[in-house]
Amino acid sequence: MQDLTIAVVGATGAVGTEFIRIMESRYPGASKFKLLASRRSAGKRLTVNGRDFAVEETTEDSFNGVDIAFISVSATVSRQFAPAAVSAGAVVIDDGSAFRMESEVPLVVPEVNGKDLEWHQGIISIPNCSTTPLVMVAHPLRQLSPIKRIVADTYQSVSGAGGAPMAELRDQTRILLDGGKVTPMALTNQIAFNVFPHIDSFLDSGYTREEQKMIDETRKIMHAPEIAISATCVRVPVYVCHSAAVHLEFERPVSPEEAREALSQMPGVTVIDDTAKAAYPMPWDCAGKDDVFVGRIRRDLSCPNGLVLWVVSDNLRKGAALNSIQIAEELVARNCLRPKSKAGSP
Amino acid sequence: MQDLTIAVVGATGAVGTEFIRIMESRYPGASKFKLLASRRSAGKRLTVNGRDFAVEETTEDSFNGVDIAFISVSATVSRQFAPAAVSAGAVVIDDGSAFRMESEVPLVVPEVNGKDLEWHQGIISIPNCSTTPLVMVAHPLRQLSPIKRIVADTYQSVSGAGGAPMAELRDQTRILLDGGKVTPMALTNQIAFNVFPHIDSFLDSGYTREEQKMIDETRKIMHAPEIAISATCVRVPVYVCHSAAVHLEFERPVSPEEAREALSQMPGVTVIDDTAKAAYPMPWDCAGKDDVFVGRIRRDLSCPNGLVLWVVSDNLRKGAALNSIQIAEELVARNCLRPKSKAGSP
Repeated sequence: MQDLTIAVVGATGAVGTEFIRIMESRYPGASKFKLLASRRSAGKRLTVNGRDFAVEETTEDSFNGVDIAFISVSATVSRQFAPAAVSAGAVVIDDGSAFRMESEVPLVVPEVNGKDLEWHQGIISIPNCSTTPLVMVAHPLRQLSPIKRIVADTYQSVSGAGGAPMAELRDQTRILLDGGKVTPMALTNQIAFNVFPHIDSFLDSGYTREEQKMIDETRKIMHAPEIAISATCVRVPVYVCHSAAVHLEFERPVSPEEAREALSQMPGVTVIDDTAKAAYPMPWDCAGKDDVFVGRIRRDLSCPNGLVLWVVSDNLRKGAALNSIQIAEELVARNCLRPKSKAGSP
Repeated sequence: MQDLTIAVVGATGAVGTEFIRIMESRYPGASKFKLLASRRSAGKRLTVNGRDFAVEETTEDSFNGVDIAFISVSATVSRQFAPAAVSAGAVVIDDGSAFRMESEVPLVVPEVNGKDLEWHQGIISIPNCSTTPLVMVAHPLRQLSPIKRIVADTYQSVSGAGGAPMAELRDQTRILLDGGKVTPMALTNQIAFNVFPHIDSFLDSGYTREEQKMIDETRKIMHAPEIAISATCVRVPVYVCHSAAVHLEFERPVSPEEAREALSQMPGVTVIDDTAKAAYPMPWDCAGKDDVFVGRIRRDLSCPNGLVLWVVSDNLRKGAALNSIQIAEELVARNCLRPKSKAGSP
């Protein structure tokens, strides 16, 4: 990893910033970065591992000599630059929705389906930040019994929509505390002291794209088109970390004890679950941490083979930047940084 | 209503304050109030319909001449004073959990089971503020097909826990905006910029009492012990209004169109549901309003006969004070202010 040349497209964004922070802590010797952004951010200076970098405007010529291009921008911008990066010989790890459901693009959470990296053709997608924690907990539980149905209702932080909504939450909150009125700008609605069930745009089905992503992406990652899934995705006035109440229905009974044990064994998952001590994960505590946290593990009283969980994870870390870096690490470990068809090329 | 003598126990609390406000708007001529509270609040002065009242300390002798005692205090205090009020000839409408599940106590949402008022023995309970909106939407839908299962995940405001948590949310928020650290006092955990799945205390089942209330009370109000119910109750940094993502499973298919029509016809329910215009209810907008608001009505993609809804309601109004006043009005309308056994007494 340390010697690879890594391009970060969207380097000044919320996820790009977190990506750089995690790279610094995992690879303090890494120095070959190309920090790319929109024209508006070009010229800004960022420090990575003590070295000063100028942010450059992303163009189709930005990717010469790049081994891995990490892209966290809008789907439109991803569609523009990812093919150019692949043509230049880079592997693209894309954080957006542009390629996730394309059949030749692996959609990967390494702990769940790292093996899917072996058939990549240059572009690898990471799941939406509400999907990743769900599959991280569903995967180990599925080893206990096949899953028939998942109902997930989310409590998603504003950073899932980027840096501007984080500033908006702070500014709106202050204005309201001071007795003023607010006008939503970065988000659809007022978020301070409010919640709303609307993330991404609406589909004809009445679901939002965010909710549909949880359905489609979960099935693709888990290779489980048979799992019935429904979700309501809700924005809450929290800066970082998405939470979810998750109801799982299994083919066979799974006890909370078995579930707790299986989740404890899962790499990247931490169980915080002791109701006697009022211990359960919360976004304020889990922000800045790598793991997916799970608690409130109990029988679903409405369903014989059901369990209910409460899941919290840092949407900028495991939900985005960390998962991308783990994919890069897995590509190196599996020796499939270059697509199989090009194996052996320099 | 106007000529009745009404005692308000907990007159200085969040629900008591709302109770007085609603009485003023519905009965501007009402003047016979007895405002009661703990010793700590005794002596405070409150204005109701332009008249000045001194708040008195609640004692067992407070209820002479009282027709209706509205009680919104802790279960312990309710247990102490409700029997005294009944002995003095008052009908008690209790907002707490003390009597809700007792077999001789009707648990009432007038639009759903007003008829249960006819067998009261002096004490009538109102449901918990997370239960009321659920039965308000489940009741009309149940006329379309029997309900087999309900899964509800809530987004509950701090005022559900009283006035002190409202001040705590405001104060904590300001401290955090100013870069300080906070210590939870009124609530279990930090609530500013945070959410947590813990309302009321934990049971051995791993559920909270709040979640178990939604299960038990819904069944009692709807006379439907057969409905399977599960819930996760979550506190969110919102001042007023509880929201919930509700998944309903019916015996027969119910279309979103049929559901929308049935909900539109339900007294006390307002449908706000137009995804093309991004119209759905939100707590900031619904606070201070009487109705239960419902939107995001769609098929449950994970369940053949399922629907998903988003429900928002003012927990201090329909969730507490308004429901109590509506019960009083219904008692008068049904001519059962006195228990049946005492009918005819002065």
